[in-house]
Amino acid sequence: MQIPVRIVLVETSHPGNIGASARAMKTMGLDELVLVAPRDFPSAEATARASGADDVLARAHIVDSLGDAIADCGFVAGASARPRRLSWPVADPRRSAAALLDHAPHTPVAMVFGPEHSGLTNEDLGLCNQVVHIPANPAYSSLNVAMAVQVLCYELRVALLDRREAGNDAPRERGKAGAWAAPGLEEREAPPATAAELEGFYRHLESALSTAEFLNPERPRQLKLRLRRIFQRSGLDRNEINILRGALTALQGGRKEG
Amino acid sequence: MQIPVRIVLVETSHPGNIGASARAMKTMGLDELVLVAPRDFPSAEATARASGADDVLARAHIVDSLGDAIADCGFVAGASARPRRLSWPVADPRRSAAALLDHAPHTPVAMVFGPEHSGLTNEDLGLCNQVVHIPANPAYSSLNVAMAVQVLCYELRVALLDRREAGNDAPRERGKAGAWAAPGLEEREAPPATAAELEGFYRHLESALSTAEFLNPERPRQLKLRLRRIFQRSGLDRNEINILRGALTALQGGRKEG
Repeated sequence: MQIPVRIVLVETSHPGNIGASARAMKTMGLDELVLVAPRDFPSAEATARASGADDVLARAHIVDSLGDAIADCGFVAGASARPRRLSWPVADPRRSAAALLDHAPHTPVAMVFGPEHSGLTNEDLGLCNQVVHIPANPAYSSLNVAMAVQVLCYELRVALLDRREAGNDAPRERGKAGAWAAPGLEEREAPPATAAELEGFYRHLESALSTAEFLNPERPRQLKLRLRRIFQRSGLDRNEINILRGALTALQGGRKEG
Repeated sequence: MQIPVRIVLVETSHPGNIGASARAMKTMGLDELVLVAPRDFPSAEATARASGADDVLARAHIVDSLGDAIADCGFVAGASARPRRLSWPVADPRRSAAALLDHAPHTPVAMVFGPEHSGLTNEDLGLCNQVVHIPANPAYSSLNVAMAVQVLCYELRVALLDRREAGNDAPRERGKAGAWAAPGLEEREAPPATAAELEGFYRHLESALSTAEFLNPERPRQLKLRLRRIFQRSGLDRNEINILRGALTALQGGRKEG
């Protein structure tokens, strides 16, 4: 039972962690490893720590950037140990495993892990659809990267076994769609936009797009709905509404400075 | 939030694994470690691998036998990677974590891990109330012992967090997170956009907003990230990318019909 999820390790410093990650992957049935600019690889230490998983190391791809590692992926989860100032949609490992398996039949998917000391940058997370946070002791949240790989690969295996047990035809348990759940209010820098604020933005957007003749005045409804759905899914906060409206005004020629 | 479960490592060969286990424990909020006849401890390698969890090592008890390690315990789970000839009651990590937490208010409880190469003997398992088996790749089930400690401690933490959440009078409204949930793939009319397609859209958006002087050419980074985040959260499909790019072209004066 192979699990079709790519593991991407970004700028890993210690080759032992690469080897231990390969071993963790193989124990759980994953075998696609991509290394973004590893500091020291190939390496005898990586091979030693991989134990019997040196075949995973041997097949690992090495690329220069995270963008290259995930260019073909339709869904990417990025591991983060730290709360972020910028609010991302955060999932726990169980929900993230469910989301990865939901997408896997339709597109390549990847799980990304950052460098040992710094973790993924905000730029890296900008390439991800979801942030995965392993719930850890707030007083000591320093999970080793290979340990994090083990936990996530374990959750992927458990999720896949659960699905097989439930039967392939069984519906995909909507509750787990919480995969994309927006973070709790306490993690955001601004309150969620109210329905009225959202409406204000949509009216602004629709008026601009009518003027630009993008919306067909006879039958604007379908396209309006599609546009709204994109932003509804995103779970906008008040700051983001302001950014979007500012951008729209600028595009209309208002030349508002950001 | 301390988790009152003792971790017992039996005849561990490699001190690095003892250190890594201490780190794994502390990240999940466990701090009671008992070592049964470790081959090499204390050890500089254990301390190095413990990273900031050397306090757990410093407080570790060393005993001569598993019997001594668990003498006061009313419930003991023993990890086993291998199917046993003798049939033991076997639990997966999630069920075992639940059983340990069920007993913990009433008695000391322990989770036991065997030596690296051989695992717990049948005699050792005879002292346990339950065997825990981490579901692994049958073709390569060789989990490192510290990785196994990490997975079990992770399940304990998740189980405890779930119980706290459930016990809270104000339930955390799990379902509501689904408010932002993306629609199931089966409802989508197009495949998820790939990372490369998303990049194409972001470049288009950023170029349009630079021309419109919305992005400050000196410091565009923060605003670019915020804009990307909005769309990354949304989980765009290929049709939606086309709609957004069409809208952008129209707003730029391309007058593209929708």
